[in-house]
Amino acid sequence: MSKRVTKATLAELSTLVEGRTLGESDIEFTGVSSIASAETSEIGVLIDSGYLTELKTTEAGALIVSETISSKLPSTVCRIVAKNPREAVSILMSFFDTTPVEQNGVHPTADVVTGVDFYAGPYVVLEKGVTIGDGVRLYPHSVILSGAQIGSNVVVHPHVVVYPDVRIGSNVKLFAGARIGVDGFGYTNSDEGLVKIPHVGGCILGDDVEVGANTCIDRGSLGTTEIQDGVKIDNLVHIAHNVIVGKNSQMAAQVGVAGSTKIGPGTMWGGQSGAAGHLEIGDRTKVAAKSGVTEDTLADSKVAGFPSRSLSEFLKGQSHLYRFDKLLDRIRQIEKKFNQDSDNEDRDEP
Amino acid sequence: MSKRVTKATLAELSTLVEGRTLGESDIEFTGVSSIASAETSEIGVLIDSGYLTELKTTEAGALIVSETISSKLPSTVCRIVAKNPREAVSILMSFFDTTPVEQNGVHPTADVVTGVDFYAGPYVVLEKGVTIGDGVRLYPHSVILSGAQIGSNVVVHPHVVVYPDVRIGSNVKLFAGARIGVDGFGYTNSDEGLVKIPHVGGCILGDDVEVGANTCIDRGSLGTTEIQDGVKIDNLVHIAHNVIVGKNSQMAAQVGVAGSTKIGPGTMWGGQSGAAGHLEIGDRTKVAAKSGVTEDTLADSKVAGFPSRSLSEFLKGQSHLYRFDKLLDRIRQIEKKFNQDSDNEDRDEP
Amino acid sequence: MSKRVTKATLAELSTLVEGRTLGESDIEFTGVSSIASAETSEIGVLIDSGYLTELKTTEAGALIVSETISSKLPSTVCRIVAKNPREAVSILMSFFDTTPVEQNGVHPTADVVTGVDFYAGPYVVLEKGVTIGDGVRLYPHSVILSGAQIGSNVVVHPHVVVYPDVRIGSNVKLFAGARIGVDGFGYTNSDEGLVKIPHVGGCILGDDVEVGANTCIDRGSLGTTEIQDGVKIDNLVHIAHNVIVGKNSQMAAQVGVAGSTKIGPGTMWGGQSGAAGHLEIGDRTKVAAKSGVTEDTLADSKVAGFPSRSLSEFLKGQSHLYRFDKLLDRIRQIEKKFNQDSDNEDRDEP
Repeated sequence: MSKRVTKATLAELSTLVEGRTLGESDIEFTGVSSIASAETSEIGVLIDSGYLTELKTTEAGALIVSETISSKLPSTVCRIVAKNPREAVSILMSFFDTTPVEQNGVHPTADVVTGVDFYAGPYVVLEKGVTIGDGVRLYPHSVILSGAQIGSNVVVHPHVVVYPDVRIGSNVKLFAGARIGVDGFGYTNSDEGLVKIPHVGGCILGDDVEVGANTCIDRGSLGTTEIQDGVKIDNLVHIAHNVIVGKNSQMAAQVGVAGSTKIGPGTMWGGQSGAAGHLEIGDRTKVAAKSGVTEDTLADSKVAGFPSRSLSEFLKGQSHLYRFDKLLDRIRQIEKKFNQDSDNEDRDEP
Repeated sequence: MSKRVTKATLAELSTLVEGRTLGESDIEFTGVSSIASAETSEIGVLIDSGYLTELKTTEAGALIVSETISSKLPSTVCRIVAKNPREAVSILMSFFDTTPVEQNGVHPTADVVTGVDFYAGPYVVLEKGVTIGDGVRLYPHSVILSGAQIGSNVVVHPHVVVYPDVRIGSNVKLFAGARIGVDGFGYTNSDEGLVKIPHVGGCILGDDVEVGANTCIDRGSLGTTEIQDGVKIDNLVHIAHNVIVGKNSQMAAQVGVAGSTKIGPGTMWGGQSGAAGHLEIGDRTKVAAKSGVTEDTLADSKVAGFPSRSLSEFLKGQSHLYRFDKLLDRIRQIEKKFNQDSDNEDRDEP
Repeated sequence: MSKRVTKATLAELSTLVEGRTLGESDIEFTGVSSIASAETSEIGVLIDSGYLTELKTTEAGALIVSETISSKLPSTVCRIVAKNPREAVSILMSFFDTTPVEQNGVHPTADVVTGVDFYAGPYVVLEKGVTIGDGVRLYPHSVILSGAQIGSNVVVHPHVVVYPDVRIGSNVKLFAGARIGVDGFGYTNSDEGLVKIPHVGGCILGDDVEVGANTCIDRGSLGTTEIQDGVKIDNLVHIAHNVIVGKNSQMAAQVGVAGSTKIGPGTMWGGQSGAAGHLEIGDRTKVAAKSGVTEDTLADSKVAGFPSRSLSEFLKGQSHLYRFDKLLDRIRQIEKKFNQDSDNEDRDEP
């Protein structure tokens, strides 16, 4: 794991920890470390008098010390004297961000692999066996569960959950509250009521995928849920278990896709639309807003309504709905003539 | 509250804290404790030389010490020598997980009761007066607010919020981001604009309930919102204040039920369906996907559409919508004959 | 930043930290501080023997000390003796809540301004440049990102995210998991696939706004998304980029509004309804549940359906849908007569 390079002068760092400086105060430092391991550009920690013997050999460019220790040091030692030196060290460590992962809920037994230029914000949790590529940003409170793999340059916003063993490609953005790899919704009836079908399948997001805020993507029951390269998903969308969303498809907010439906590449889904389960949605299909697709679609279709029809048929149907009155008038007219012709009585309106 | 039993050898623990061992390194330990209270199977903490006098009486099987302290100990004392002994102790405490609750945002005045085999992950928050049964797993970042009661074998996924005084049965699963017991949505007009109706009612989940990711269940305004035993709810569902969902009902993703509707047992709700408020939904009613129930239903009904109809009526209506053209043809044909018969002029199409 | 005033007697505090008291145990204290800075009503910390010299000058009403230190103090010194004094101090600091912000993920370089009577729960994160008014309550795990401004008496529930530079008025309530100021959903096609339109616009919530659980409000792409004074939004709602929601409008659960639509004041939106983008919705418009508004509306309209119509037209259309059979009967009757008249053959049913 790499360190972010942050620089500050001794005076600035002293202000940060409400301490006072002795010695050259405008030298820049890039980190804080134990007195034994500190390099010239780092501030060494000397709080416990047990470490005073390290003073002769340390390479630290300056020290952070307590008042007590300070009084025992030669006046030539460049230092920050802190009232509460342990808290001050903690503040400096945060500031230099030298151990972003360890500060953020990584279990001590975790076997996490992170790339260079990795950032994890406050309260990020990384469980065991997580692998993270270069340039990844994990914003505060994101939770990456055991065995998940995250590619390079992925941005994970606050409160995202990536469930165990999910695989996420590169250049992916997950917005706040996205849930990736949730258990699917599947139960069978038994004598003891509904029994859950185990969801032990996978969940894969390709490269360049974006997932909106509070969107939920289920893992497979068996097999895999797959969001292919370049797919863009808006807020509050639901993708059920074993769904495949083809490359570069776009889904507006509040779309829902039921289990095992396979969606071709380049499809576009209007807001609040959805699809039933076990369908095949052809390449570049366009689904109108608020529609519910109930049957397979051919490539390049445009569909709408529930049950779904072609868009043109749907719109014609809707317009007919509001021409019923005129139709009724024409029938009345015909009946009237008949009645005139044949003296029949007017019948009840439908 | 019980402790999880985790074991590791002195050598493994030493590796974990980047220390070195003296003495028998393959004895297994089950915890870390103060030198005064440590048992034979635990590692005692001896960092402050003020506690050196405890050395004669301690039962600790090994000690964790600083270099300074180590140099004052007889060579027979089995130990881990750590560069940064306080950090090392913190790592060991995490590893042995001896105080899972206290590490996770329990307010020091909290009066939390937890059962045996209780696990709380990083950054879990338990407020005052929370009661938690046996075998409960609280995953990272879940928040259980004051006075909530949680039964046995409940699994709470990351980022779930259980609001104050909610009562949750046993064998319940709450998936990531579920919100249980939110204030309902109810306002009255006043001279000063919309004024919120207080939501001081309860929210009860029975046994064997599952609640999907990012699903929201409101508490009652007065009275109680109730999700009965065995109900399974998918992702992104909304259950409003004072709703009752009967036993073993199943709701697919993105369903919404408005306030005070009472739902019988065994109902099934398709994705993106909903119901208006103050309805009575009969036992085993099936609601088609995308439908909005607008009136009470009898037991065993199947309903669809908005406003809702019986499913068969709805499907007939939809099919008629697309036969309007043929109907129009027949009328034109009749009119044509009339016109031939009576020389009437063709009228405008509807 | 103000401190909450919490009081407890020395005996109560001692119980809290599992310590023992020496001296007057029923004096009340209001805080804990370093021995150098403690006031009469506060407990001074004396753990490191290096600070023993402060004993002569401290104003602390009592001290918290280790056993070792205690043995060196005159018997007249009022104190709590703690087994694990550092942990005890941490517990007392939590209890007195004297540094609520610093305990909650405030980055040490953050330049946060908070008003009086400010509360931040466990694991709250405040980034740089955040401004917070008087009487604000930030519940556990809420995350306020850089530069966001929050007015007075705002209540932020657990797991809320306020994105950078969002401006929130006074008396606002944000329920659990609300996401305010998310990147909007907008892409353009390029040779390299879909390219994101930057979302650098603002997001403003007025006074007296309420935002339901897991609701998402996007920021503007350019320009601003604006939720005006008094607007009440239920759970799981989606408001896209550059939308304006007029004063005192009410939106039920799972509503979705697409980008750049301007909504007048006093509108009401039924559950699961929505609107297309770039519309103008007139003042006090009422949108029926499950409807999708597809064209501008006049003031005081009532609309329904998708594509949307006036509510009366929609309901008439729906009722016609189920009278098609009777209409068909009348046409058959007419045709029958014709056939009788002219011996024409019956034609196929539509």
